[in-house]
Amino acid sequence: MTMSAHFSSRGTATEIEEGLLLMPKFDANGLVTAVAVDADTKDILMVAHMNAEALEKTLATGQAWYWSRSRGTLWLKGETSGQLQTVQEIRVDCDQDCLLLLVKVGGDGGCCHTGRPHCFYRRVDGHAENGAVRLAMI
Amino acid sequence: MTMSAHFSSRGTATEIEEGLLLMPKFDANGLVTAVAVDADTKDILMVAHMNAEALEKTLATGQAWYWSRSRGTLWLKGETSGQLQTVQEIRVDCDQDCLLLLVKVGGDGGCCHTGRPHCFYRRVDGHAENGAVRLAMI
Repeated sequence: MTMSAHFSSRGTATEIEEGLLLMPKFDANGLVTAVAVDADTKDILMVAHMNAEALEKTLATGQAWYWSRSRGTLWLKGETSGQLQTVQEIRVDCDQDCLLLLVKVGGDGGCCHTGRPHCFYRRVDGHAENGAVRLAMI
Repeated sequence: MTMSAHFSSRGTATEIEEGLLLMPKFDANGLVTAVAVDADTKDILMVAHMNAEALEKTLATGQAWYWSRSRGTLWLKGETSGQLQTVQEIRVDCDQDCLLLLVKVGGDGGCCHTGRPHCFYRRVDGHAENGAVRLAMI
């Protein structure tokens, strides 16, 4: 999927929720949430953000681009690691402030910068004596 | 899973990424992103936000509570619709600014306020002649 695009202005609630034009709701920082999902396994790989330019580049190239909030830069996922995300499909939610990307991961098939295949490698596992919430590796 | 909890202060990068204590990174608005996933099908149901109180209540009750950014209120998902989300497991991502909730949906099994089973019912489907991005119902 490669295309060059521009985004429609936000419309009425009906246009946003039932319409067939993409009109993303960028937040005060100009971002939408983007959830990357493995197209084969349905595993959630990561949750990141896109600004309009990242979304444009993703649509134009078919590779996932994000906006790094920590670095304040546009970011081609996998540019250095080789873990490029080739986009099979992009879905949008009802109020169009969140995108879901079905991707195939390149390189070694990983995603997380910690070296793991995805970012959600811990689960809540009860609480410690002092009330803190304990995690466990999955 | 029911527990009363408090959250650990943010630690070093290693403590955040490799540690076994929940230390959520609430954003400037006091929110973390929460992705609700059907525990059986792995379908992504919705993406919403939690403040500390919503997360506390979720941990304490085993039902998903969120913070509604549009209404500015705490929100027990399904309180009026009956579509309660009973939490089977909560996962956290590497930098602990996003939670993944594996849930079983009550009531009629739906999630989206538009009446659909989940919020991601449209996909990007190319572009119109004027360059706008076209969607298609899934």
